[in-house]
Amino acid sequence: MPVLVMKFGGTSVATLDRIRRAAKRVGVEVAKGYDVIVIVSAMSGETNKLVGFVNETSPLFDAREYDAVVSSGENVTAGLMALTLQEMDIPARSWQGWQVPVRTTSAHSAARIEEIPNDNINAKFAEGMRVAVVAGFQGISPEGRITTLGRGGSDTTAVAFAAAFNAERCDIYTDVDGVYTTDPRVSAKARKLDKIAFEEMLELASLGAKVLQTRSVELAMRYNVKLRVLSSFGEQSDDAGTLVCDEEEIMENRPVSGIAFSREEAKMTLVSVADRPGIAAAIFGPLSDAGVNVDMIIQNIAEAGRTDMTFSCPNDQVLRAEKALSEAKERGEINYKELIADKDVAKISAVGIGMRSQSGVAAKMFKTLSAEGINIKVIATSEIKISVLIDRKYMELAVQALHDAFELEKD
Amino acid sequence: MPVLVMKFGGTSVATLDRIRRAAKRVGVEVAKGYDVIVIVSAMSGETNKLVGFVNETSPLFDAREYDAVVSSGENVTAGLMALTLQEMDIPARSWQGWQVPVRTTSAHSAARIEEIPNDNINAKFAEGMRVAVVAGFQGISPEGRITTLGRGGSDTTAVAFAAAFNAERCDIYTDVDGVYTTDPRVSAKARKLDKIAFEEMLELASLGAKVLQTRSVELAMRYNVKLRVLSSFGEQSDDAGTLVCDEEEIMENRPVSGIAFSREEAKMTLVSVADRPGIAAAIFGPLSDAGVNVDMIIQNIAEAGRTDMTFSCPNDQVLRAEKALSEAKERGEINYKELIADKDVAKISAVGIGMRSQSGVAAKMFKTLSAEGINIKVIATSEIKISVLIDRKYMELAVQALHDAFELEKD
Repeated sequence: MPVLVMKFGGTSVATLDRIRRAAKRVGVEVAKGYDVIVIVSAMSGETNKLVGFVNETSPLFDAREYDAVVSSGENVTAGLMALTLQEMDIPARSWQGWQVPVRTTSAHSAARIEEIPNDNINAKFAEGMRVAVVAGFQGISPEGRITTLGRGGSDTTAVAFAAAFNAERCDIYTDVDGVYTTDPRVSAKARKLDKIAFEEMLELASLGAKVLQTRSVELAMRYNVKLRVLSSFGEQSDDAGTLVCDEEEIMENRPVSGIAFSREEAKMTLVSVADRPGIAAAIFGPLSDAGVNVDMIIQNIAEAGRTDMTFSCPNDQVLRAEKALSEAKERGEINYKELIADKDVAKISAVGIGMRSQSGVAAKMFKTLSAEGINIKVIATSEIKISVLIDRKYMELAVQALHDAFELEKD
Repeated sequence: MPVLVMKFGGTSVATLDRIRRAAKRVGVEVAKGYDVIVIVSAMSGETNKLVGFVNETSPLFDAREYDAVVSSGENVTAGLMALTLQEMDIPARSWQGWQVPVRTTSAHSAARIEEIPNDNINAKFAEGMRVAVVAGFQGISPEGRITTLGRGGSDTTAVAFAAAFNAERCDIYTDVDGVYTTDPRVSAKARKLDKIAFEEMLELASLGAKVLQTRSVELAMRYNVKLRVLSSFGEQSDDAGTLVCDEEEIMENRPVSGIAFSREEAKMTLVSVADRPGIAAAIFGPLSDAGVNVDMIIQNIAEAGRTDMTFSCPNDQVLRAEKALSEAKERGEINYKELIADKDVAKISAVGIGMRSQSGVAAKMFKTLSAEGINIKVIATSEIKISVLIDRKYMELAVQALHDAFELEKD
């Protein structure tokens, strides 16, 4: 029988009642003839509670013990989901990561899945079991210890199972009903997309549209797993939600598919840095060591032999960045006149695979912002994305104006 | 290095603060030179919460899924205890049942431990690890699924590890500071025993003094594990609490070591049963099938060919017993005139290995009760125990009188 993977996130299994509602959705797919692999997260709030226990016990915790503790939430949901399905007369059983086994690297708390043998579960399917419920987010290291994949890792578990079992589709049930052209809270004209390309989803995920864990999208792209994002609370049909798929499956060819934004950005400028070969490494090495996630970088030649270096990073990492840079200055590794931090900026990005073949997208974006009187502070581009930093107070206006300019409300 | 097993129950690990206090006790033993195996229960309340989830999800649950769900509480405590010990610079790590592995039968929710290989943990001790923290109450079946040992099973886990590692002693930390001559809430003269024989402890445990799980005492007796019960909240010394040990290690030779009682008993009498070979089986077979725990049984010949049959059982099983017996009567398997249930009785027992060699214990017990005007309804005896059923209203009086008569307050 064809295999379907269905993943339910924390809010979709937050109570016994919601587990029952999720189980009913599984029952619908079983009735259609699918053998189903259900991947579950912990009941919402549980993982945070356990992480809190660990942090309070040991601020610099042993990641192996952290994993042993926090993985328990998924085990509870897996057992309860199997029991719920059995109550509906659907043959089901639960698997914990080590029972499958989901083999991962030893990088505790950020492990990568290396192999998922499918013989155990397939043998049970052959015996008449219809649903395998698997605890998401966890695996087992070569040393036989429990690992976890990092927050949101259940998405990655789901895609990895879909690849290992050659599933027809991987449905990610969550609390939103799909991927939108932009955040509906910012623009009332936001439209749900029926389809989006893997590459676009990757840009949107890393830009802060936290619908799917980035790694799950990368994995789906590599193994060409059809990935669907849909709501646990809405209608259930084969074309609900948004399908994340190969770009060849997308007929429409717009230059821009969506407008993403990130509110909590900061722009930092090192004024009058002594320019010399290796200066970028001397600046960004210490920042990386300090755990600062540098995003956009631009360099201006201000005067002969001196340069201004500007970069962006999340707002809450500004203090860390300032400390790392002033220490590097004290050690004599870099030399600059002044460090200016602008903590009132936002990042706006237009994303679309159509940009590859259509020109004029950047020009249209800049013209639209200019017409609204919005000053652009930094520009960065990739093959399918154009990002700008602007004053935060113009963020909503910019999103709405760009959404209109690229006619994203139209189907 | 010599090995010590230390087990901490649910109230001893109820909060992070209590886990820290328990860890300090472990640290004291490590400083003395022991390699320590710590067995932990779930934080108190957790197992009940999980059992509640299972019961609400599926009243007639699949015990394999029940086990997968409820075992998670111990895993959390094991990880947190290992982290706490590491914070104290004590090399420690956690093991879940399947990691050791604790091999059990497949009798889910009531599994028996069959084997505990000690090579994994001993290899870590050899590398310098000082504390192995093991999740109690759980194991793995021959089919590779998680099993649990039944409520209170962590005591059994502790004793089984003590046997497998040839431990010097197995310390059970709980919320009472030892085994008493009787319940201090009933008699202010109750005295803590320094030592008690395995056989006596078995009788006390099954009589409702819920200090230790019965199976853990049986196991300790079979493998001659020195078992100590002591409080997590009191002083820590080598002779704190009560040592449960072989009777040969006990010098004092009293006829009676303790007075146990059980408040929630019922006495049931089948009046004028047609007497014939096999009648006892015809009565007690259906009761056993109905899950009634019959304790004492006595049979009186009332008239030729008829007999009265009396038995005791827990108060809350009376309805179930009545239903099973009336159904057996309808099926024509048994015949009786009347079924009388007396739900206002209590059981009092005098327990002591000294009874074996000293006569007159029963006579003294009956005389004492008689002097207080207490009528005895049923008597049952074993080699080291005399039990009587009396009206419940006299229970406290009887316990106090017997405690005095056998001079149990004297050291």
